[in-house]
Amino acid sequence: MDKEMYCHEKEAPIGVFDSGVGGLTVVREIMKQIPNEQIIYFGDTARVPYGSKSRETIVRYSKEIVHFLQTQGVKAIVIACNTASAFALDEVEREWDIPMIGVVKPGAKAAVRATRNGRIGVIGTEGTIHSKIYSQYMEELQKGIQVLGKACPLFVPLVEEGLLEDPVTDEIAVRYLSELIDRDIDTLILGCTHYPLIATAIGRVMGEKVLLVNPAYETARELKQLLECQGLLRENPPGLGKNRHQFFVSDAAEKFKRIANSILPYGILSANAMNMEQY
Amino acid sequence: MDKEMYCHEKEAPIGVFDSGVGGLTVVREIMKQIPNEQIIYFGDTARVPYGSKSRETIVRYSKEIVHFLQTQGVKAIVIACNTASAFALDEVEREWDIPMIGVVKPGAKAAVRATRNGRIGVIGTEGTIHSKIYSQYMEELQKGIQVLGKACPLFVPLVEEGLLEDPVTDEIAVRYLSELIDRDIDTLILGCTHYPLIATAIGRVMGEKVLLVNPAYETARELKQLLECQGLLRENPPGLGKNRHQFFVSDAAEKFKRIANSILPYGILSANAMNMEQY
Repeated sequence: MDKEMYCHEKEAPIGVFDSGVGGLTVVREIMKQIPNEQIIYFGDTARVPYGSKSRETIVRYSKEIVHFLQTQGVKAIVIACNTASAFALDEVEREWDIPMIGVVKPGAKAAVRATRNGRIGVIGTEGTIHSKIYSQYMEELQKGIQVLGKACPLFVPLVEEGLLEDPVTDEIAVRYLSELIDRDIDTLILGCTHYPLIATAIGRVMGEKVLLVNPAYETARELKQLLECQGLLRENPPGLGKNRHQFFVSDAAEKFKRIANSILPYGILSANAMNMEQY
Repeated sequence: MDKEMYCHEKEAPIGVFDSGVGGLTVVREIMKQIPNEQIIYFGDTARVPYGSKSRETIVRYSKEIVHFLQTQGVKAIVIACNTASAFALDEVEREWDIPMIGVVKPGAKAAVRATRNGRIGVIGTEGTIHSKIYSQYMEELQKGIQVLGKACPLFVPLVEEGLLEDPVTDEIAVRYLSELIDRDIDTLILGCTHYPLIATAIGRVMGEKVLLVNPAYETARELKQLLECQGLLRENPPGLGKNRHQFFVSDAAEKFKRIANSILPYGILSANAMNMEQY
């Protein structure tokens, strides 16, 4: 193992990245489950959204960001974006020798464990759904499992417009989700990091019998195990108070800060804007 | 004038660019009003949307695209994107010696000519509205004019989801537009190239007394005048049939083709994908 490739110290921060603000739902779970850790977050707000872009583009962007996070001395990287996890995780893992997890595999594993009738729904962006990454992975885990994917392109803009509890969001949810109800799924993966923010509306449409799987929660759990196994789990908080975490964005830092402050358990003081073209 | 800077020939094509598919509503108007011209279109689909990004980022992207269009030997450039017209037109015009128009000034002029009570509304993306470019320009044209801007971030995703005639679009339109009705405007600028595609819904909400100004139409008119003045108007069609126009995108060419074919008067055969980072 090439020690220069990443910082192999418990005290080093964890790098988390996403196309924009959505990955903060993963950060929120990490903060809850392993509260001693320090997080360096990167949101690619200059190039958001990833969901409608091609594999090649997403792989290129992800490599640039991993390179940037490495310069920050992180001990592990979380790809907190379903599209980037689907398209780029395997390729990036091959190139870099640093512990890395995406949100797809933890979510898929939890869904396969949870289903009773073997019929699982996945909702996400066009990129995630068309990649079929969730179905492929779940079929590897359990032969014969039935996976029904449905792209929901309006959910992200509705969340970013703040319509979390709103009849319009409910109406759009009914349109997107009806076919999944008709196909009798018993488990639904929220395959986009924005979706946990409208989990209540989604749950209302799907009904009580359908279990919603939040990959953000599962990812934070797996991250904890990964760090434990590698002896990288931090034992004490860094003693920098609430503002020990650092947030970087490729554009529009003020807008990011505003949305971040509605997702995270406490306010963030600043988000640093930077140009990714140098990475 | 540096002749190397652009192709000063009637037979050269016109370059048109936008962040994605929206600028095709401008292309549609150019095709109608000056049907002999050949168009080279660039849609920056890898970095769409521009509406929520900062001035610096949009200026950088616009310069890259103008550079690319120049390599294609265009005789004039149309910035068929309100955000890029607002943020980048002046700067790009200073750097390049090529006839260039955006969509903002033609739309603003038409609105000032049309209003009777001096109260004009503008709807657009967050970038366009917060830039206050329409108000500034209209106040220069006519002192004392009242301009009321309103950002409508959900309109673009609703259009791209194909909900052109849909109760959800009507409901969102009512929410965005009510305050403009209350403020008694008599003219409304559709300050985003996607919006002409839902002009019917917008008109229904605003009522018959409010005139809708489509900057795409006004831009094609001004482009024709500009080319005439400079002796650059093409006299005969290039004889290449319907497929003489060329379409380039920075990502997801197939999806672009699908939406393009619903906007343009006839189908486009191909869209070429390219990486902008070399420009």
